[in-house]
Amino acid sequence: MQLGLVGLGKMGFNMRERLREGGHEVIGFDPRPEVTDVPTLDALAEALEAPRIVWVMVPSGEITRTTIVSLSEVLSPGDLVIDGGNSRYTEDGPHAKLLDEKGIGFIDAGVSGGIWGLAEGYGLMVGGSDENIERAMPIFDTLRPPGPKEDGFVHAGEVGAGHFTKMVHNGVEYALMTAYAEGYEMLSAEPLVKSPQQVYQAWTNGTVVRSWLQQLLAKALKEDPKLAEISGYTDDSGEGRWTVEEAIRLKVPVPSIAASLFARFLSRQDDSPTMKAVAALRNQFGGHAVKRISESG
Amino acid sequence: MQLGLVGLGKMGFNMRERLREGGHEVIGFDPRPEVTDVPTLDALAEALEAPRIVWVMVPSGEITRTTIVSLSEVLSPGDLVIDGGNSRYTEDGPHAKLLDEKGIGFIDAGVSGGIWGLAEGYGLMVGGSDENIERAMPIFDTLRPPGPKEDGFVHAGEVGAGHFTKMVHNGVEYALMTAYAEGYEMLSAEPLVKSPQQVYQAWTNGTVVRSWLQQLLAKALKEDPKLAEISGYTDDSGEGRWTVEEAIRLKVPVPSIAASLFARFLSRQDDSPTMKAVAALRNQFGGHAVKRISESG
Amino acid sequence: MQLGLVGLGKMGFNMRERLREGGHEVIGFDPRPEVTDVPTLDALAEALEAPRIVWVMVPSGEITRTTIVSLSEVLSPGDLVIDGGNSRYTEDGPHAKLLDEKGIGFIDAGVSGGIWGLAEGYGLMVGGSDENIERAMPIFDTLRPPGPKEDGFVHAGEVGAGHFTKMVHNGVEYALMTAYAEGYEMLSAEPLVKSPQQVYQAWTNGTVVRSWLQQLLAKALKEDPKLAEISGYTDDSGEGRWTVEEAIRLKVPVPSIAASLFARFLSRQDDSPTMKAVAALRNQFGGHAVKRISESG
Amino acid sequence: MQLGLVGLGKMGFNMRERLREGGHEVIGFDPRPEVTDVPTLDALAEALEAPRIVWVMVPSGEITRTTIVSLSEVLSPGDLVIDGGNSRYTEDGPHAKLLDEKGIGFIDAGVSGGIWGLAEGYGLMVGGSDENIERAMPIFDTLRPPGPKEDGFVHAGEVGAGHFTKMVHNGVEYALMTAYAEGYEMLSAEPLVKSPQQVYQAWTNGTVVRSWLQQLLAKALKEDPKLAEISGYTDDSGEGRWTVEEAIRLKVPVPSIAASLFARFLSRQDDSPTMKAVAALRNQFGGHAVKRISESG
Repeated sequence: MQLGLVGLGKMGFNMRERLREGGHEVIGFDPRPEVTDVPTLDALAEALEAPRIVWVMVPSGEITRTTIVSLSEVLSPGDLVIDGGNSRYTEDGPHAKLLDEKGIGFIDAGVSGGIWGLAEGYGLMVGGSDENIERAMPIFDTLRPPGPKEDGFVHAGEVGAGHFTKMVHNGVEYALMTAYAEGYEMLSAEPLVKSPQQVYQAWTNGTVVRSWLQQLLAKALKEDPKLAEISGYTDDSGEGRWTVEEAIRLKVPVPSIAASLFARFLSRQDDSPTMKAVAALRNQFGGHAVKRISESG
Repeated sequence: MQLGLVGLGKMGFNMRERLREGGHEVIGFDPRPEVTDVPTLDALAEALEAPRIVWVMVPSGEITRTTIVSLSEVLSPGDLVIDGGNSRYTEDGPHAKLLDEKGIGFIDAGVSGGIWGLAEGYGLMVGGSDENIERAMPIFDTLRPPGPKEDGFVHAGEVGAGHFTKMVHNGVEYALMTAYAEGYEMLSAEPLVKSPQQVYQAWTNGTVVRSWLQQLLAKALKEDPKLAEISGYTDDSGEGRWTVEEAIRLKVPVPSIAASLFARFLSRQDDSPTMKAVAALRNQFGGHAVKRISESG
Repeated sequence: MQLGLVGLGKMGFNMRERLREGGHEVIGFDPRPEVTDVPTLDALAEALEAPRIVWVMVPSGEITRTTIVSLSEVLSPGDLVIDGGNSRYTEDGPHAKLLDEKGIGFIDAGVSGGIWGLAEGYGLMVGGSDENIERAMPIFDTLRPPGPKEDGFVHAGEVGAGHFTKMVHNGVEYALMTAYAEGYEMLSAEPLVKSPQQVYQAWTNGTVVRSWLQQLLAKALKEDPKLAEISGYTDDSGEGRWTVEEAIRLKVPVPSIAASLFARFLSRQDDSPTMKAVAALRNQFGGHAVKRISESG
Repeated sequence: MQLGLVGLGKMGFNMRERLREGGHEVIGFDPRPEVTDVPTLDALAEALEAPRIVWVMVPSGEITRTTIVSLSEVLSPGDLVIDGGNSRYTEDGPHAKLLDEKGIGFIDAGVSGGIWGLAEGYGLMVGGSDENIERAMPIFDTLRPPGPKEDGFVHAGEVGAGHFTKMVHNGVEYALMTAYAEGYEMLSAEPLVKSPQQVYQAWTNGTVVRSWLQQLLAKALKEDPKLAEISGYTDDSGEGRWTVEEAIRLKVPVPSIAASLFARFLSRQDDSPTMKAVAALRNQFGGHAVKRISESG
């Protein structure tokens, strides 16, 4: 079917390709002239036959918000907007309302798979009305991985449920990564283990811990067995923070997701103020030596 | 090749089957007459042609120790013992030494895969000398999953490295399980999500979090979508405890593995003494109401 | 000096007494006729000479908000409102603005000390303009504990800083309580220790861990050495949740405060959904026995 | 009374002073000629009248062990050895047995208070027989802080109970320090708070969180309000590690003590291998930028 696709970054670019390979007519818009199919959002709306479907794949927050406002101005009653970005689910309600006032439908779609989705398909978690979901199904069917629909696609609930589910997915992802990483550090610390890299390779088959992420870590270790070239400095994109915040709202204990989030915060500190305070305390009561900054310079 | 297999429980029984299907001649010993092939360890030694290989697959700790002592008495110089159970890696050195004094070789083998290993093959992590590993390779090749040897099998290092690696594997496994479980609880707590079970099914394909364990949780939820029939009471088999102990020795921070272990301890308490003390404290300084035991009865 | 005091609950009632003992003229208002000095807020405003000071000591959230709105209607330009409740600091700005539009000043005051404050004085952390703080200082001087002003009182910053500081105070308090409680559980679990109660009593003097909370736990254990009468079910009043949320906003790792918060959530669950999922997973891959609900009933 | 004191380091030196001020005759031995009273352990034994009491105050582990072995050789039946160092409680049994074979008694004494104990007295937790404890009581009475004996002194149980209790004390201490330190970091991170140092000063009186450690942190911040001169690098002396190990043995969940221990491990790493693995993983699946080591140099 025909659809518009706003945002042709790392994810959107690949999705356009997968959709075209699947036989859809995709008209993409992006501010960067070298990748866009049309010069403006107006031109996008004009190029699409009503009733239109427009998939938004832009960074969450401000840019998603302004994109949806702009779309509410150029689209027409009966059109449908799908937010496939990593928006916080609490923003879906306001976006849906804004569009609904113009008679435009809304679906929130969590999309997983990263740069591998182009070839393998994207895991999809969507929220919205049955009617809207049904209407966009040909798009979902192309984006999702081959195989039974219920593996790789879920209509999670009303508007917001898609992004909520994707947020939890990413929270779980944080904790899984920490789990594998702690194992890597232990194997690296024990001289008895000849090659943590070979262990991670061996874990890819037959073990209880095998997974897609596990394979990726095995791959990363094959490329750089001691991760000598990689710094531990790790950003976080928002969804880990939201997961812990929502866990607090829901009164759900999430020690391992929270530990993973805090480890990222810590990885970006030059020196931990918390540990400076602990060191200062030890020094106060025990006369324990502290490392003075002035000594290390 | 010909081998003896001591211990025909849940794991050993299946391994005998897989080895026989792979063309090996397996003589099994188990105290339970209904499963054993020979009546005694002596008979096992007699039934095997020297130089013998005997795979030990019994519960770790006391039973493994006494089995190895017994084998040291019935086997001959040039024979080889493989401990495939979940022994703590610190016991491998003493076992190897004990056997070495009789001229008997030793390999420690971590075996992963649970009840699924029979069909899919077992992930293997082994420790010992190149020579001994080489000698037992036909057995390993049958037990491990099909495909490239380095996926599913690793010679992790000298004696002890196999069980150390398996211990870390299980520590990681604890943390992975907690990660998926925290995600499940969050999905269950949010009314927006229609069916956590369907979400877990959808995560099996295309997502970043997909894994073998993730599939198993999807399967468990298919059988019992609210886990209504399952208590949160969770045992721990020792390897999680050892992992945290070894992490402490190696000075490796393992917050997510430790959190997973502590969650299991807590799951087995009727009422947490820690939280009783917290409640008592709140009551002391704030006059906050506490739930008195005598009221609930 | 003369002041109004709105809210004569557990905290406000005691504060009125301490202020009166300190020579202030306090006119209290509370909806409960048996404790109030005036029948209505209007009557309170009338009874006070302008320019007035009114201290609000009511539950945070909705009740604080409506109280401040009501005060903005009955007070006059030049008056001053002090919110001494446990409001989230993010609400102070809007409250200050609302009052400022009527020419009324605002101070946020974090008050610590619980039921002991009446006798010992309250630790005070206040936010607002120098001018307003100066004006209310006679009140603070009576409420705070005797001794140097900087011990027991801090002008933490502009509006919001008082409640922010109090929120962090309570976050730290959560973690301190958990620390003592974990120690209690360990002492209780080890048969070598004759009496955890006596240990806690002994820790009240000379040790590194001695503190006011530590004394309170010793006192609680003296009253009930095994805490046999106290359930671990523990509420949380909001400030622990806010602390972790603000830590996430500030990208500050707070593993011990978060662990303390999650432990409270967990203490209120009959059976942990997270642990049900872990148990279900173990059962799936290992054939490990699970405790079935139907068996325990 | 008369006693020998082996080990005149930071702790032992001060204890000798406090004991002498308390009217005891203390003969100290230390390998450093500038502090010792006698040249050898032999000379110490000779200088003391039988039945002797010798207090050992040397580093835990090897040095304590060899000191006790040496004492078993120079002392006589009826003498009494008190190990006041931070020995792991599991070593007390063997030490007691070794001495008992020579007819020499043994007490394990946990001593808290650090460099402040000289002036304020030491919190004491002792293990051993009623008879031995009774015999050494004049020493304990001088070392402990003034006030009721049960505040600042506990006979915790049989041999080992003193050091076990002290170990838990130190585990709790770790968690308390982290609690205060997390609060400090939050106050430092929020621009609204003018001076975390002033807040910590204010918390010393009237608040729920006030404590001896809290006062020390206030003092440290007064000396260096931003802890600019102190590195977060923090050693751990063993007791935190033992506490978590014993918690695992006792199946007691200790999330906040463990988090405190892991934070110390992490503070000593230049770059966290765990976080390197997390960063490598993010890069693999998401094409997220990683900080390459080669770029930072």
